[in-house]
Amino acid sequence: MGLLPRFADEWVLKRILKATGQAPIRLAVRGGADVSPAGVSPVATVVLEDRDTLAGLLCDPEVSFGDAYMDGKIEVQGDFVRLLEELYRAMENAPGARKWYSRLASKWLDLWQDNSPSGSRKNIHSHYDLGNDFYKLWLDDQLLYTCAYFPAPSSTLEHAQIAKMDHVCRKLRLQPGETVVEAGCGWGALALHMAREYGVSVKAFNVSREQIALARERAAAEGLNDRVEFIQDDYRAISGKFDVFVSVGMLEHVGLDHYREFSEIIHRSIGDHGRGLLHFIGRNCPATYSRWMRKQIFPGAHIPSLPAALKILEPKDYAVVDVENLRMHYAKTLEHWLERFERSKQQVTAMYDSRFVRAWRLYLAGSLAAFRVGDLQLFQIVFTGSEREPIFWTRDPLYTDTKPVVEKVREKVKWTHAMS
Amino acid sequence: MGLLPRFADEWVLKRILKATGQAPIRLAVRGGADVSPAGVSPVATVVLEDRDTLAGLLCDPEVSFGDAYMDGKIEVQGDFVRLLEELYRAMENAPGARKWYSRLASKWLDLWQDNSPSGSRKNIHSHYDLGNDFYKLWLDDQLLYTCAYFPAPSSTLEHAQIAKMDHVCRKLRLQPGETVVEAGCGWGALALHMAREYGVSVKAFNVSREQIALARERAAAEGLNDRVEFIQDDYRAISGKFDVFVSVGMLEHVGLDHYREFSEIIHRSIGDHGRGLLHFIGRNCPATYSRWMRKQIFPGAHIPSLPAALKILEPKDYAVVDVENLRMHYAKTLEHWLERFERSKQQVTAMYDSRFVRAWRLYLAGSLAAFRVGDLQLFQIVFTGSEREPIFWTRDPLYTDTKPVVEKVREKVKWTHAMS
Repeated sequence: MGLLPRFADEWVLKRILKATGQAPIRLAVRGGADVSPAGVSPVATVVLEDRDTLAGLLCDPEVSFGDAYMDGKIEVQGDFVRLLEELYRAMENAPGARKWYSRLASKWLDLWQDNSPSGSRKNIHSHYDLGNDFYKLWLDDQLLYTCAYFPAPSSTLEHAQIAKMDHVCRKLRLQPGETVVEAGCGWGALALHMAREYGVSVKAFNVSREQIALARERAAAEGLNDRVEFIQDDYRAISGKFDVFVSVGMLEHVGLDHYREFSEIIHRSIGDHGRGLLHFIGRNCPATYSRWMRKQIFPGAHIPSLPAALKILEPKDYAVVDVENLRMHYAKTLEHWLERFERSKQQVTAMYDSRFVRAWRLYLAGSLAAFRVGDLQLFQIVFTGSEREPIFWTRDPLYTDTKPVVEKVREKVKWTHAMS
Repeated sequence: MGLLPRFADEWVLKRILKATGQAPIRLAVRGGADVSPAGVSPVATVVLEDRDTLAGLLCDPEVSFGDAYMDGKIEVQGDFVRLLEELYRAMENAPGARKWYSRLASKWLDLWQDNSPSGSRKNIHSHYDLGNDFYKLWLDDQLLYTCAYFPAPSSTLEHAQIAKMDHVCRKLRLQPGETVVEAGCGWGALALHMAREYGVSVKAFNVSREQIALARERAAAEGLNDRVEFIQDDYRAISGKFDVFVSVGMLEHVGLDHYREFSEIIHRSIGDHGRGLLHFIGRNCPATYSRWMRKQIFPGAHIPSLPAALKILEPKDYAVVDVENLRMHYAKTLEHWLERFERSKQQVTAMYDSRFVRAWRLYLAGSLAAFRVGDLQLFQIVFTGSEREPIFWTRDPLYTDTKPVVEKVREKVKWTHAMS
């Protein structure tokens, strides 16, 4: 490289660094220029393979960073998660350059990845039908793909996922014989837990073929077929009357344009006398979800602000009785997932390819960083119909009526990994 | 009364009954017509003194009912609270007759009773400066005029008010030496509790002259002058930096138009590293507050929906960490207040007049009914600045680290009623 191009590269790198809000990182072109903010020691180094990558980052960093990382055109030297944390932190105060471009591109993605029934099928299929064997490599043994609840930061992931299911059931104060509808049930663990531990009947909906297939096997193996029905269909196909509506980790796939519809479906299911729980990734203030994530990982996803999500409950006069923010629990969950994922990377590479591994590493590490710095939050909302009493007088029973559910459940579900 | 006018009265009464959504009540003109919905046994009877009252109810029931009740032109035979509950319940499904009129009249009231600094002073003065002796007749012995927290429904009001203050302090995890700013401090009980039991320094603001005067006496009597400063001023006058922002029962007086300003003041006080708690009367969905209540009891008051209140925290990227709905605790609090108020009605009549007694009975009974049926909710929101960790890992310590605060405090503050 000559001297002039090196100066040009340096100028571009400085512009990129400025656009990050002067994040404490080092940016370099392999074998060429490198920059970092004055007076700070960088937490890690981002090495760009060539000038095309540099140009991409300059034009549309939101998508280009991820795509170039996937393609091996960007390498990170140092702590990857820490780098992403510092980037997110700095970018909160960054100059809002080219926001019009990002907004426009985001709108275009919304249209392209619409969440109509057929659009949702496509969006969900592309992520959740990657193959159960893949998810078994790095999720807990009951396959829960949502934020866990760690009684202590040192709890195991397996323990924390059972504790999460039980926390949900307790918040709803499920009673034997009651009926529950679940919108978006993953591989069925929560539906089975509710039926097994609380004696309720559950109708659980999910458009993912692979997930429903395994969930049905599990219900049969546990002899819970008479009380848990897994239906391979969209949440919009929910019909019938229930005591309780539950949705854990599905709202992110509904999309703002369909909140009114979602609200109607909740009301159609539980009316004014029921109760429900929504568990979802949210934000402190409205923002669009990363275009790279929507392009490569979660098509059609939208992460709402808490007030936007609560607007779902307003038209039907539902009373919010409890909101809990479990942000740090999702960070902890993601630490476990990322660690297990890294341990399985040979197998994942064999299943897919190294580009896939790099994309998923960025997704998991990026989500972990986002929960750590507070760009993402995890909300559990409990609500009741306008015609019924609150669920609890105080929250005391949630914390003082301890029963050793977790260990009991661990014994019962040891079979899970042996299956299919 | 001739036969024709009696038929005419009956026709009007039926129209009024229809406008209530056919509430299960009996409506009668004294010595004349009376109506009730077919096939139900009425819970109580509303007797109108004369035709003027009847005409008033027909034209503007929202204000006329209360005014006529105040003036003794309406008598209620039977359970007053139960009557109001049934009215509120039925009116949720009532035909929305003359809503344009109500909206217009409501807008006009908003303008008339504005919450600018001078408007607020007038609004607050008219309610909270009625005289401390009046409030001592029916509040608890520490004079808390906000929703209590009843560990059990049978707890005493005195116990429940201390438990409420402690619940607030625990949710915020106050640490000795921290600084707290309180927006709207009533007679100072919470500020004193925070300083005495948690070792923090408090600056507490309130525009009510009478309340601040007593609060200062109490701080002096407790020897807490060095750590609690009571300032007779508007929340907009808050200056300085604090670790914690607390506001209990004040947001109702801020007014929607001033939420942005309120948001700025919170941020100016605690920045991105602080934490805070808002405790306020809210709703499930947006509505205007009763015009009668605003005319006679709480000028300038507005009761926000939960999403509307949360919008205060959005612009500054505050994270909501906990929302608790204590609706039934406010119903229980109001049961105690109403009962004590009725026991003191001779004294209140002597202080003011029977019109005042009737107005306040309607206000207390109406609020009790509104909390019971769910027209009103009580929310406690805990939030943290975008640059700090959540306050708790789980909520367990709130419920399991029990210390016998309540009884200890009861001993210490026995002096309260002896004062001024």
